[in-house]
Amino acid sequence: MQIYSSSSTKLTNLHIIKSSSHHNQWRHNHNLKQLVVPSSCPNLSVSNSQQHPLNQSVAAIVLGGGSDAELYPLTKTRSKGAIPIAANYRLIDAVISNCINSDITKIYAITQFNSTSLNSHLSRAYTGFGLGKDRFVEVIAAYQSLEDQGWFQGTADAIRRCLWVFEEFPVTEFLVLPGHHLYRMDYKTLIEDHRRSRADITIVGLSSVSDHDSGFGSMEVDSTNLVTRFTINPDDKGQQDLISVESRTSRRSDGTSSQYVPSTGIYVIGREQMVKLLRECLVKAKDMASEIIPGAISQGMKVKAHMFDGYWEDVKSVGAYYRANMESIKRCILVVGGFNCRFYDRQCPLYTMPRCLPPSSMSEAVINDSIIGDGCILDRCVIRGSVVGMRTRISDEVIIEDSIIVGSDIYEMEEDVRRKGREKKTEIRIGIGAKTRIRRAIVDKNARIGQNVMIINRDNVEEGNREAEGYVIREGIIVILRNAVIPNDSTI
Amino acid sequence: MQIYSSSSTKLTNLHIIKSSSHHNQWRHNHNLKQLVVPSSCPNLSVSNSQQHPLNQSVAAIVLGGGSDAELYPLTKTRSKGAIPIAANYRLIDAVISNCINSDITKIYAITQFNSTSLNSHLSRAYTGFGLGKDRFVEVIAAYQSLEDQGWFQGTADAIRRCLWVFEEFPVTEFLVLPGHHLYRMDYKTLIEDHRRSRADITIVGLSSVSDHDSGFGSMEVDSTNLVTRFTINPDDKGQQDLISVESRTSRRSDGTSSQYVPSTGIYVIGREQMVKLLRECLVKAKDMASEIIPGAISQGMKVKAHMFDGYWEDVKSVGAYYRANMESIKRCILVVGGFNCRFYDRQCPLYTMPRCLPPSSMSEAVINDSIIGDGCILDRCVIRGSVVGMRTRISDEVIIEDSIIVGSDIYEMEEDVRRKGREKKTEIRIGIGAKTRIRRAIVDKNARIGQNVMIINRDNVEEGNREAEGYVIREGIIVILRNAVIPNDSTI
Amino acid sequence: MQIYSSSSTKLTNLHIIKSSSHHNQWRHNHNLKQLVVPSSCPNLSVSNSQQHPLNQSVAAIVLGGGSDAELYPLTKTRSKGAIPIAANYRLIDAVISNCINSDITKIYAITQFNSTSLNSHLSRAYTGFGLGKDRFVEVIAAYQSLEDQGWFQGTADAIRRCLWVFEEFPVTEFLVLPGHHLYRMDYKTLIEDHRRSRADITIVGLSSVSDHDSGFGSMEVDSTNLVTRFTINPDDKGQQDLISVESRTSRRSDGTSSQYVPSTGIYVIGREQMVKLLRECLVKAKDMASEIIPGAISQGMKVKAHMFDGYWEDVKSVGAYYRANMESIKRCILVVGGFNCRFYDRQCPLYTMPRCLPPSSMSEAVINDSIIGDGCILDRCVIRGSVVGMRTRISDEVIIEDSIIVGSDIYEMEEDVRRKGREKKTEIRIGIGAKTRIRRAIVDKNARIGQNVMIINRDNVEEGNREAEGYVIREGIIVILRNAVIPNDSTI
Amino acid sequence: MQIYSSSSTKLTNLHIIKSSSHHNQWRHNHNLKQLVVPSSCPNLSVSNSQQHPLNQSVAAIVLGGGSDAELYPLTKTRSKGAIPIAANYRLIDAVISNCINSDITKIYAITQFNSTSLNSHLSRAYTGFGLGKDRFVEVIAAYQSLEDQGWFQGTADAIRRCLWVFEEFPVTEFLVLPGHHLYRMDYKTLIEDHRRSRADITIVGLSSVSDHDSGFGSMEVDSTNLVTRFTINPDDKGQQDLISVESRTSRRSDGTSSQYVPSTGIYVIGREQMVKLLRECLVKAKDMASEIIPGAISQGMKVKAHMFDGYWEDVKSVGAYYRANMESIKRCILVVGGFNCRFYDRQCPLYTMPRCLPPSSMSEAVINDSIIGDGCILDRCVIRGSVVGMRTRISDEVIIEDSIIVGSDIYEMEEDVRRKGREKKTEIRIGIGAKTRIRRAIVDKNARIGQNVMIINRDNVEEGNREAEGYVIREGIIVILRNAVIPNDSTI
Repeated sequence: MQIYSSSSTKLTNLHIIKSSSHHNQWRHNHNLKQLVVPSSCPNLSVSNSQQHPLNQSVAAIVLGGGSDAELYPLTKTRSKGAIPIAANYRLIDAVISNCINSDITKIYAITQFNSTSLNSHLSRAYTGFGLGKDRFVEVIAAYQSLEDQGWFQGTADAIRRCLWVFEEFPVTEFLVLPGHHLYRMDYKTLIEDHRRSRADITIVGLSSVSDHDSGFGSMEVDSTNLVTRFTINPDDKGQQDLISVESRTSRRSDGTSSQYVPSTGIYVIGREQMVKLLRECLVKAKDMASEIIPGAISQGMKVKAHMFDGYWEDVKSVGAYYRANMESIKRCILVVGGFNCRFYDRQCPLYTMPRCLPPSSMSEAVINDSIIGDGCILDRCVIRGSVVGMRTRISDEVIIEDSIIVGSDIYEMEEDVRRKGREKKTEIRIGIGAKTRIRRAIVDKNARIGQNVMIINRDNVEEGNREAEGYVIREGIIVILRNAVIPNDSTI
Repeated sequence: MQIYSSSSTKLTNLHIIKSSSHHNQWRHNHNLKQLVVPSSCPNLSVSNSQQHPLNQSVAAIVLGGGSDAELYPLTKTRSKGAIPIAANYRLIDAVISNCINSDITKIYAITQFNSTSLNSHLSRAYTGFGLGKDRFVEVIAAYQSLEDQGWFQGTADAIRRCLWVFEEFPVTEFLVLPGHHLYRMDYKTLIEDHRRSRADITIVGLSSVSDHDSGFGSMEVDSTNLVTRFTINPDDKGQQDLISVESRTSRRSDGTSSQYVPSTGIYVIGREQMVKLLRECLVKAKDMASEIIPGAISQGMKVKAHMFDGYWEDVKSVGAYYRANMESIKRCILVVGGFNCRFYDRQCPLYTMPRCLPPSSMSEAVINDSIIGDGCILDRCVIRGSVVGMRTRISDEVIIEDSIIVGSDIYEMEEDVRRKGREKKTEIRIGIGAKTRIRRAIVDKNARIGQNVMIINRDNVEEGNREAEGYVIREGIIVILRNAVIPNDSTI
Repeated sequence: MQIYSSSSTKLTNLHIIKSSSHHNQWRHNHNLKQLVVPSSCPNLSVSNSQQHPLNQSVAAIVLGGGSDAELYPLTKTRSKGAIPIAANYRLIDAVISNCINSDITKIYAITQFNSTSLNSHLSRAYTGFGLGKDRFVEVIAAYQSLEDQGWFQGTADAIRRCLWVFEEFPVTEFLVLPGHHLYRMDYKTLIEDHRRSRADITIVGLSSVSDHDSGFGSMEVDSTNLVTRFTINPDDKGQQDLISVESRTSRRSDGTSSQYVPSTGIYVIGREQMVKLLRECLVKAKDMASEIIPGAISQGMKVKAHMFDGYWEDVKSVGAYYRANMESIKRCILVVGGFNCRFYDRQCPLYTMPRCLPPSSMSEAVINDSIIGDGCILDRCVIRGSVVGMRTRISDEVIIEDSIIVGSDIYEMEEDVRRKGREKKTEIRIGIGAKTRIRRAIVDKNARIGQNVMIINRDNVEEGNREAEGYVIREGIIVILRNAVIPNDSTI
Repeated sequence: MQIYSSSSTKLTNLHIIKSSSHHNQWRHNHNLKQLVVPSSCPNLSVSNSQQHPLNQSVAAIVLGGGSDAELYPLTKTRSKGAIPIAANYRLIDAVISNCINSDITKIYAITQFNSTSLNSHLSRAYTGFGLGKDRFVEVIAAYQSLEDQGWFQGTADAIRRCLWVFEEFPVTEFLVLPGHHLYRMDYKTLIEDHRRSRADITIVGLSSVSDHDSGFGSMEVDSTNLVTRFTINPDDKGQQDLISVESRTSRRSDGTSSQYVPSTGIYVIGREQMVKLLRECLVKAKDMASEIIPGAISQGMKVKAHMFDGYWEDVKSVGAYYRANMESIKRCILVVGGFNCRFYDRQCPLYTMPRCLPPSSMSEAVINDSIIGDGCILDRCVIRGSVVGMRTRISDEVIIEDSIIVGSDIYEMEEDVRRKGREKKTEIRIGIGAKTRIRRAIVDKNARIGQNVMIINRDNVEEGNREAEGYVIREGIIVILRNAVIPNDSTI
């Protein structure tokens, strides 16, 4: 476990610092890259006195997300933010919609890993976002330059290399947002809290007890919500578990009480502070959570926590993805604060790519506790507890239960099928073939499921990789790969 | 009775007129305005030698449609073109999509009657239509000017008063299109036919035997598709029926055979011919079908017919609207050439207003032979043979059969309902209340159907007007009015 | 002069009304239609407690403007709002930009008179305005309906007939804005003032002494900015002048002081108050300024004034139009608060139709104190103190002084000129021909000025109409009509 | 020099092949990476029988361009395609406009090097490009994936790695286009030529004698335009020069005549051929010109040349950039076929990012033979033979001659300047300070030129790098860097 101390508790922590290393408490930590903290780092007090409206003074930096083994194979050809969710959306729509609904209109999305789908989605979905240069969702893809021919090396490195782009507008704060979280937050309240407290950095923490490790570190917070220590331990699950075991509220040696709060990875950072941290103080830091935030604390910056107790889901694994989709089925009335509340909320709509698909056509469908995306073609079938995405075609006598059918990018025409056949490719059409049964599975986009197929995890496998055959099994959930072909009469 | 002959057969036809006025059904009809054909009308031969690509050389003029008693109450607050159809569309989308798919990119829509919904739909749906001034759907609403403070007096008057707008682009032909027809046509073929035959005007005629009066007149066509006579009789159904009773092909006195073909009201007219007809020859003509077309023939212009034998539906009455929707339910496989073929046709998509609605949520729906629009909320219900439009909310234990539920403009939030109650308005929510049963009815937009309502035309009424109670009955079909409130426990 | 009393002086005024209808100045005024004030008009106190953000709770109603003889011939083929101004803009852009910059995002523009240009401009300019239904500039053109086949009869009638459209969103206030004024105002401050004072109606008044009659009436305002009387006298200049002669501040009989303030015609009106006034209390009123505002006061509504002391120009005559353009030449540094400050103000940009015109090409231009629109083609010429609009073409040896060249809609290609020649039309090209001299004139759009033409008002005419020859003279300013052709060697 | 033979002249070339290597004539060339040509490469005859309209059957692949030392410092922070040109445009607009004007509507732009400006420009400029998925300009930025974590290794590698994206639409041909060329071409003619000749690949060659090496290789072409040999020698200038020295037409040993034609790097390639070449035959090839084209010839594919004799400029060096801008000043009348013909051509407009900038404001400007972009602010200055880009601010007593002022991204407000001063940055404003003189220079975007500065290349330096001082000299042209600050009273 790593510990960083804020300047306000410097003396106490100095002891810790000394015992672990001579003059820098986190420098020699084996989890961290060597940080060079220049001794000449200038005074960091920066005034926040200007109070412009949000849409002029705050820019959001949405992080598109990297490769994530736990989400494979959903991230095989796309980044996390581009994963389709809740039938009609992509993951990143939740965060972008939060921005729009909070009147934050300068949105940069930084992408690098498998970014094509995400870039395309963002460009098509948010082009109609607004007039002029002050309302935009701008994608900044990783790029080579003469100075730096490498990829972005981490979240901090990515932001540092894009600072010259962000400088176009003289905003006062940056709002840093991981792009693959599901939650509903009014960032206005957050920004106001940040300004009122005159913090240099404000971190959103989860106030409700949560059994999952946020993966974005833990804050030790005093009674004024000042962050006194920040710990991260992405690699050492054993130690991290200690946090959830011990009481989250502890009494400190100086008599004050403090609390451990998981970070969401959502930060408000003053523009000048961001520039100083990335360009002057921590010029080699690559990661925001493990390097910049603790570095800021050790530099004496005022870091505050902003508590959030709503629904918050980090879609970081196939299992989390499955659960988030299942959540989206439930109605607003049942799940107060749930994600899909927003589906039908006029004040806070969930934006995504506008479409003009035909209506769903159903010849004899029985549908229970499910959501059906736009433009599906459903024959005689039964659908229970499932999410059925856009343009899904389901044939006769199909039964789908507790599953996610991601849908299709196109309507495959008869002539397409014939052409494909001519080209010696499969003649199995995109969609679900007749008499097929699917249970507790994820069928990724454009998959071709033949007739009389059973996707039921017959052997109760927990983890398995049959990629050559078009599927993998994660946490007991079968995932049919994008574009996969499952032949007639298969049983999985 | 008026008769217009093409110049090439002028003498001959005069003879026919004189000798057989007793069996020309519309000559003496008092409903027709006297035509003023100035004798000094200049020579009308105009060359069509320039062959520009369609998107540069043709402008479409879409007529938004006037008040039509037979469509009441669907046209109570909207023009014909704005009537919602097939769950996700408006009538006018069919014609606009034909233009786009035919690469005709200069589209003017002339509107006057109840034009607000139509203007709004066209502006929102087709703004993203394209780059530059050469790709647009421009709405021309009726307007007052210093010279003419009146409304448009008819289709010809409307086009005449908008000629100054059309002159912005030096097109070679205008394509005149009624905006409320359902059909799929490649206008490229039509234009090529027009150019190849060096016609002044080309009229699209229905070649298949059709039992309904097109309402746009009848052409007598010779073996070269030259239109030799043009008749119209919108008000006199009895006589008009003669056309369908008698053989459509007749032998003329001079030994040549001719054919009566119903016109669709779709015209290709050379730009210069249009200007001369409207501004020089027939300066007081108000209507295209009854005045300009016959006037052009009598002036000696070369008017040709272009035969069309596909699906073509003039949505001109509540009954026709009901049938067109029912057609849209059928699948492409079943109805070759039917309207909804295009739903899933990538080459010829049907465009409309892009949306980003949430997926349809269904708690326990049984849906047979129906189409379901985007973003519906369906509880425990049975839907058979019906069209369910966007954002429709259907409560528990509802049965809907052979009906059209047009849908809703908004999701009514709990707070909206409460506010409405506070304002002493109804607390019945938009949508269909619990335990309600609807059969063979049209429920127009934003209607509030209470609980335990029976909309079944209990008394088998064919025609009835109960507008104060929120509905009318047309051709045995109950039409619940837009925004109407049907109280709990009503039976209709 | 007409006088209306506020509720605070109700008793007194009732007495006046009853006992002395002979000195009730507006009741019997022949300029006014008889107002029907139902005695049963319900209590009008309405709470304004809900404080939503502006973009959700306020809708702007922009009035496109009618026929205005003093602006002729600029309004010959367009409405006031569509008049081009300051080289790159249309008049209405000023008001729409105020809305956007004030975060008012629901904008309805009501049009009727010569509306085609205005509708087209608004549709093309503001389509990219924003995401979703909550950000729009929607044009509502005059339309016929079954209930009312007439045109809008005035501003109040127009709003009344569009109320059903405005009801789509449950806003709390309407902001009524004449569309042809030039000024810069943050409507947020206005709305906040309205809400803070719990007024039913707030009227923007001009606090600076202004020698021109606003044309929107005069308010008698007490020390709390309550409007106690409202007078309008559009036709009787003599009496109106009294206002500017007498001291604007007077002492009332009860010892309190009051002030006469000219109204701008800009109103904030609570939604419920608007509905009640138009639908219940004053169901036959046609005009806002002369009927609804005084009616509201006499009904006892709380009407407040909001003072505005910035630059405000009502472009209501050819002279005012000329002066407003001349103002736009001056630099920000010189004219604090002037209109063109906003040209280069990033916080409050002036929006208009986006263009991608080529750069201006100049072969030998000497340009003093002028503004030049996009994509001009200037040969060897001298331009002084002038406004030169988009796509203007100026040939060799041309001198333009103190003039407005509105510009052109197109670049006329050589082939266009040749085609026009072939069609027996002029061969004079759009733009200003060689050796021509223009002084103190307005050259409207697409005019064709030949070579060696003198437009100098040789005879010092103040008012003249030579429309057949392509121009009129207003206030000593020559106005060349849109599309006019001025032959070579003419002198005007 | 490398030589590749087409199958049709196999025997002849075999001799050459044998003499240079045993079984593959270009395999051992030291300029080329080792190519693996699988012996099992399938038969490559592919039918082109389907003749869809261009906008459905052809996709353009625009190559954003890499790092190019000869263009430095213009490419310091942007890729070649993003370089501003002709006051209002970016280089890539020329190629994109060609596509749009040729009705090719599926446009992919592949970017990697310094791609941020280019991506942003393309997204903002062409978002309004059209309806639906069939009309788009989609940016594909370099990305990491699980299979390949590296950057694109060359043009062929980039296309190979994006093939999965291109497969979304079943086009019949790809049109490969370098993104930094200036020319006007109707690709329709090119595609028709390709289809008519049933070629596998068609390469656009320059038919006019041109003294510059195209850099894209040379074709030996027979009398039927069949490409019989393809040579490239990017690194060996000496040998390449031979081409321009020797007569371009030579007589071959078999008595037929052949011709050497420089390639433009523009290719039409059948979809199936592209897939086979990249995925089956030449799976390790990185470059199109040096590997794929010769590989296709040696594989026996039919490669044809399509001659182009219009203006064509490869903006590949600072000098070429300077000359292309100077060309853009000349008028259409003077330079037939020149680039800027298109400025005012309604049929073939040059598209770019739409703007709504204010008009240019000029207080006392004398402008000769120059083009002025939108929204400039020019004080008392003289501009001769120069290109002045958007938002350029020029102060009093400035003289600019034979120069390119790229312009500015923003209007710097007084408050911006003050803030910058407070932050210890310069107070020199963006633009050209008073009394400054600039001759034969390029001032890149957002540069701040102080007062009384002389940019005149006083010492007649041909090549020089003073980047720390804000400029470099290339081919005798001074280039002031983007964002550079040139202090008052400097002389360069």
